[in-house]
Amino acid sequence: MVKRIAVGEPADLSASDALEAMAEGALSAQALTEACLARIDTADPQVQAWTQVDHRRAVFEARAQDRRRADGLPLPALHGVPVGLKDIIDAKGLATENGTPLDAGNRPSEDATIVRRLRDAGAVIVGKTVTAELAYFHPGVTRNPHDPERTPGGSSSGAAAAVAAGMVPFAVGTQTNGSVIRPASFCGVVGYKPSYGTVPRTGILQGAQSLDQVGFFARSVEDVALAGELMGPDGVDEDCHLNAGPLRETVLSEPPLTPDLAMVETPFWDRAAADTRDGFAELLDVLGDHGTAAGLPEVFGRGAGWLATVMAAEMGRNLGHYADRDPDQVSATFKALIEQGRSIHAVDYLAARDMQAVMREALDPLFERFDAILTPSAPSEAPRDLDTTGDPIFCTLWTFCGLPAVTLPLLAGENGLPIGVQLVGPYGQDAKLLRTARWLARLCAANVEESG
Amino acid sequence: MVKRIAVGEPADLSASDALEAMAEGALSAQALTEACLARIDTADPQVQAWTQVDHRRAVFEARAQDRRRADGLPLPALHGVPVGLKDIIDAKGLATENGTPLDAGNRPSEDATIVRRLRDAGAVIVGKTVTAELAYFHPGVTRNPHDPERTPGGSSSGAAAAVAAGMVPFAVGTQTNGSVIRPASFCGVVGYKPSYGTVPRTGILQGAQSLDQVGFFARSVEDVALAGELMGPDGVDEDCHLNAGPLRETVLSEPPLTPDLAMVETPFWDRAAADTRDGFAELLDVLGDHGTAAGLPEVFGRGAGWLATVMAAEMGRNLGHYADRDPDQVSATFKALIEQGRSIHAVDYLAARDMQAVMREALDPLFERFDAILTPSAPSEAPRDLDTTGDPIFCTLWTFCGLPAVTLPLLAGENGLPIGVQLVGPYGQDAKLLRTARWLARLCAANVEESG
Repeated sequence: MVKRIAVGEPADLSASDALEAMAEGALSAQALTEACLARIDTADPQVQAWTQVDHRRAVFEARAQDRRRADGLPLPALHGVPVGLKDIIDAKGLATENGTPLDAGNRPSEDATIVRRLRDAGAVIVGKTVTAELAYFHPGVTRNPHDPERTPGGSSSGAAAAVAAGMVPFAVGTQTNGSVIRPASFCGVVGYKPSYGTVPRTGILQGAQSLDQVGFFARSVEDVALAGELMGPDGVDEDCHLNAGPLRETVLSEPPLTPDLAMVETPFWDRAAADTRDGFAELLDVLGDHGTAAGLPEVFGRGAGWLATVMAAEMGRNLGHYADRDPDQVSATFKALIEQGRSIHAVDYLAARDMQAVMREALDPLFERFDAILTPSAPSEAPRDLDTTGDPIFCTLWTFCGLPAVTLPLLAGENGLPIGVQLVGPYGQDAKLLRTARWLARLCAANVEESG
Repeated sequence: MVKRIAVGEPADLSASDALEAMAEGALSAQALTEACLARIDTADPQVQAWTQVDHRRAVFEARAQDRRRADGLPLPALHGVPVGLKDIIDAKGLATENGTPLDAGNRPSEDATIVRRLRDAGAVIVGKTVTAELAYFHPGVTRNPHDPERTPGGSSSGAAAAVAAGMVPFAVGTQTNGSVIRPASFCGVVGYKPSYGTVPRTGILQGAQSLDQVGFFARSVEDVALAGELMGPDGVDEDCHLNAGPLRETVLSEPPLTPDLAMVETPFWDRAAADTRDGFAELLDVLGDHGTAAGLPEVFGRGAGWLATVMAAEMGRNLGHYADRDPDQVSATFKALIEQGRSIHAVDYLAARDMQAVMREALDPLFERFDAILTPSAPSEAPRDLDTTGDPIFCTLWTFCGLPAVTLPLLAGENGLPIGVQLVGPYGQDAKLLRTARWLARLCAANVEESG
């Protein structure tokens, strides 16, 4: 493999390459941060990925990391890595506006757990990235960096776009249905949504507590594996009890056996575009004996309805006050969600909740045979429509089960835009899933070189 | 203190005294079990605490424990202790009938986690004890051992009565509102309901998953502390994540400082009978400077309503199928619960669920000043009424918050029947709570001796 080294463009380095360059002294954290800030200055007027950027504070934090290095102190895992935060995540010194004018200028008094851990790990907080309204469907202002007439996806729109546009090598988002995997697919970056219960949501807007999952955007599998440093219970988020991190050592190792992937079309295959279907056919050719078509247990046919029930009921409870406060300042989409959520009966909500574990367990036989599920990240390239964030359906089932998922920008559609390939692993097996993803990324890269 | 040694009546020994006698070889497990079985034969025709007793299997298990001892093997923590199980708890070889004819003869294929742990700890499973219908309010056949015209309380009716009548020294029940503390109070035994999330409910009828808590009956605080051996996550019950056990070492130690108790009347003091009020006034006299009247945060005034919402919604979901299967075979009380549960909206259910943590946290300042809350276990002596299991209201708030609670049979009412004194501790601090309870029991015993 040819190593990407672009000394003139540190903003385009992967986080891992930047960390290596900083460790060797070939790059300072300040230079990296300033390159990212310069890219934001140039590109963001079109992309509009950011709600706030704190230039001064970011450079100040980067210089503190450089002093650490100059003093010969050990470098933390994310030493000097510039990071963007979806604007539903609290960071001291920055407003959390949650994609709604109702929260304009709201300043949190505490860092979210994930932000505290990022700072402890040496990351440089650059600013906040655009989210769909209250992390639901109504889009924010961000454009797709590959084509400004196309959606970047949502709800972590700005985070995905910022990483794709070279503004930061690492960004944090959240997924309640398809809000990490789908924008990563549309923007052509790597997206990783860990197993439910691995990353505390303390200090993050609560939409639907049974579904909300923190996720990460970066430019390689190695990079998203840095998230392993940020995992584990914090004693506040009671649903966070899994210790899946650290990930890097496993992820960087070779799989002991060649992985076997289960190609799963899902019950929604008719929503996949022709170029997506063609891309997966080619991918199966590349995989040969290590890619096998597999069906899902019948119960999965109703999974999307159950997720919708849980999501609407919990958002109705948690976010309904926004609609009540000023109905004119929330979207019609959001109002309809709240109205629907408030009409759901507790017994139906609880029945749907029960299915999360049932569906997760129903996949056990499949994961005994296969290392991961292979499936699209989104139905198509990013739609040419700024009034939507696109269809999350290819994420829904996995989010509902809380399974770890990663999307890789391996395919291109008919307009040359990225189409993500999603891998889904068994619950809690995040490290192995990312190792499999790295293997697949390298297999495809080798295949392209071969045929090129 | 005078040690209770009654060689002629091993069935009346506390579990701790029996364990000591067995360890010394003064008593065999077989003799203890046979004494308990004999007491059941004599007393149960009146008390009706048991739904099934497996004489042969119990003696067989006891003899296996005796062989262990004869072979010089280390004795497990509950070596040879005869145990009764509320008949909503699965034990292989015994039916689980859940207090309803709809489950007559149902035989589980697996032990509940708690039963597996009891067996591993050397306990002898004697049989299953009567529960109120589906662990809700409609009473079973059990009579109060102190007066057959009075209720033993519920829903763990048989478990409490069996321990009170000398049929077993240790029994397992469950509490969703007041189903351990209240029957223990009415029957004059020690009852202990650990912090929510310490004992797995795997293999136990699920009524309301956010409230259901396993609890224990015995004849001393030392004895209920044996439950520490049975605690900790089992990897199946996802709500069980606390490691509160083992308890015994702390419980048997002296408090480093004299405990300070907060006498809490609760918003329901008008439901406490005159003899209960008088008893607590006397108790405060005994405590002197170490008992202080304290109020609850205002939010507690609505706690009982929130518990009712959560309980009805979850039981509606989990148990509604019983009412649907054959409405003639369930009680009117139960049918009304299911109907109410099915009418609750998810947003109201979720709002009530949120209050569990809010209320728990609202007690932090109180628990900074006091070691435990002191409050009645029930409004009065056991009511002279077999159509009710009595009023759980003095348990409701603590169950809702998931706080550890213990009841001690320290007071007597106007008819000479027991009135329980309840101590409630901070979340997860079960060992310290039981240590405080042991201190209080000994203080009262010394006081009785002094004035006697």
